[in-house]
Amino acid sequence: MAESTNPLFIPVILGTARQGRQSEHVANFLLSEMKKRPEIETELIDVRQLKMRLDDAGEEMKDPEFAKKMTRADGLAIVTPEYNHGYPGLLKHALDMCLEEYIHKAVGLVGVSAGPFGGSRVIEQLVQVVRELGLTVTFTDVNFSRVGDAFDDQGMLKDEKYVGRVAKFLNELVWMTRVLRHGRENIPPL
Amino acid sequence: MAESTNPLFIPVILGTARQGRQSEHVANFLLSEMKKRPEIETELIDVRQLKMRLDDAGEEMKDPEFAKKMTRADGLAIVTPEYNHGYPGLLKHALDMCLEEYIHKAVGLVGVSAGPFGGSRVIEQLVQVVRELGLTVTFTDVNFSRVGDAFDDQGMLKDEKYVGRVAKFLNELVWMTRVLRHGRENIPPL
Amino acid sequence: MAESTNPLFIPVILGTARQGRQSEHVANFLLSEMKKRPEIETELIDVRQLKMRLDDAGEEMKDPEFAKKMTRADGLAIVTPEYNHGYPGLLKHALDMCLEEYIHKAVGLVGVSAGPFGGSRVIEQLVQVVRELGLTVTFTDVNFSRVGDAFDDQGMLKDEKYVGRVAKFLNELVWMTRVLRHGRENIPPL
Amino acid sequence: MAESTNPLFIPVILGTARQGRQSEHVANFLLSEMKKRPEIETELIDVRQLKMRLDDAGEEMKDPEFAKKMTRADGLAIVTPEYNHGYPGLLKHALDMCLEEYIHKAVGLVGVSAGPFGGSRVIEQLVQVVRELGLTVTFTDVNFSRVGDAFDDQGMLKDEKYVGRVAKFLNELVWMTRVLRHGRENIPPL
Repeated sequence: MAESTNPLFIPVILGTARQGRQSEHVANFLLSEMKKRPEIETELIDVRQLKMRLDDAGEEMKDPEFAKKMTRADGLAIVTPEYNHGYPGLLKHALDMCLEEYIHKAVGLVGVSAGPFGGSRVIEQLVQVVRELGLTVTFTDVNFSRVGDAFDDQGMLKDEKYVGRVAKFLNELVWMTRVLRHGRENIPPL
Repeated sequence: MAESTNPLFIPVILGTARQGRQSEHVANFLLSEMKKRPEIETELIDVRQLKMRLDDAGEEMKDPEFAKKMTRADGLAIVTPEYNHGYPGLLKHALDMCLEEYIHKAVGLVGVSAGPFGGSRVIEQLVQVVRELGLTVTFTDVNFSRVGDAFDDQGMLKDEKYVGRVAKFLNELVWMTRVLRHGRENIPPL
Repeated sequence: MAESTNPLFIPVILGTARQGRQSEHVANFLLSEMKKRPEIETELIDVRQLKMRLDDAGEEMKDPEFAKKMTRADGLAIVTPEYNHGYPGLLKHALDMCLEEYIHKAVGLVGVSAGPFGGSRVIEQLVQVVRELGLTVTFTDVNFSRVGDAFDDQGMLKDEKYVGRVAKFLNELVWMTRVLRHGRENIPPL
Repeated sequence: MAESTNPLFIPVILGTARQGRQSEHVANFLLSEMKKRPEIETELIDVRQLKMRLDDAGEEMKDPEFAKKMTRADGLAIVTPEYNHGYPGLLKHALDMCLEEYIHKAVGLVGVSAGPFGGSRVIEQLVQVVRELGLTVTFTDVNFSRVGDAFDDQGMLKDEKYVGRVAKFLNELVWMTRVLRHGRENIPPL
């Protein structure tokens, strides 16, 4: 029952395909912070790049590359803007393609908004969805408020307070991912 | 300040594009019940038929035909299955294309599920979204539980109890749509 | 079908009984702004003053004074802090005492938090509850973020930007309250 | 890093104080099923019995007996009816009394309703609250629909299908409780 020492595979899902999306800066920043940690292996999954369709939904239209990554993942980080107090449609369209792949894995949520509330509402809606998917959500979110002020035009972080917030977010996500991996590998289901 | 006697334009949005969708039966049944009422003018808006994109989101990718109908609408009925306790991605992708078009209009929600809870959870999430869109949601939903048992293979309603439920739903939706139309036309904003 | 010219009775519910509550400053400020408007008649309803019990719940323990006010009300304003992303228990305990009294009346929501998100999450949960109660919620909230900085020790508003926000909130609440009163009085249910 | 073999302490919180509450039958049934499992130690925590007040809220009015049990608990099961699509006020009033006590422990949710949807909506709202409390919610709920038909007048279970559902619920709750206890005891926070 020794804990695995392999790196944890925790991809980052960028949850919007909107032209001009500022969440891309957030996802890139998060990714760069994750790559500094030897215990994490990561990569970007961009909903704009997934093989999805406009005339179907759910597991029947599963993108095999996406599913393979979800199967391999130990945990997930989702970076998402808030659209009308909910999640972007294409993020949900993507998440709904898998189910078994997610079970008993960790997920951390990063909300993004142009206004002052940092995606606090999209996070609440996603908490309900990811639970049904079998994911275990951490309780240490990052909320990027007024994202237009947090990054410069090249997408470089201007507001340094997010370095510490992302560190705290990753500490919790890594812990939960490790705990659940140990559970999946060593504690048999009843 | 006499009330307009024009029919109320209340289109039905079918909120899923999934192949094999049973919500289509529900939408067709609802539509046929609405067409029996002279006070309602309606038509089906199928998210599968909308001009949407997989590389954008929001008002920038507005489908002009959809927007024109939302502008003309006095109210809406949304028929939606529940996917993983949330709304179908493509329904949200569609709704996010408009904003001003919805303000101070009524909406009624019809939930559909294969299981026993009639889309009760997707309705709760949509309540939050449609409010932010400026719509006023009624409180008399229809919940189609075990939709596979409610219709036959040709999509004809087998379970007659839904006739009365849809009538109650429409009574409330018509009332709220009339009340808000009167307000928009006669009670000036402050 | 002429519109009633009586003032609209819109009481303010203060939704927490916590010792040291800062939401009381918010409720008092809102109340004073409402009293400046001749079209509104208002008073404070403090959940701490209601006749409630710790060994019962729901309509069976209805406080008759509270119920009388809900019957008389044309609309409501609820001022509530956010506790653990939800509503204060005693606010819900109070709201659950009535049902028929609320139907087809308007409600506006004012969120309060010590932190930066202005009660954005408690508002989302309340939106679902008040709908089930038969209330129609407006879509123009006020969010008091970092409430400790917004008022001085005597409870006087320091941050003047809230004057404009409350005005916008009241404009919408008055409009919706008038529209629904007209509907209740003049548009018969089907 | 050997797993502890002590029984898991998983109390059952009965989340309503309403006179005539049928959720009490559910809590008693759940408790009796839990007592059959040697890996679980449990007891009933009845919100009606807690030391709470009607003129305060939060950690300042913490019931020391309740807090002691939350500190000792490895996990929780919450049995709750749905009132107006949300949680009973007194359940929230109780939960808000603690915070640190809950962190990194498991919780399973059992919804109860007089109608057909088994508390599906109260569960969704609680999912958001318990996450903020630091609890990790399982994804295998039990939904007691039409609870009046599920038990006889003496509170004995009539509908045997709930035996299997509770078993599945407990299997998952025990697994998650064990996994998190191992994590708390053996995997240091970063």
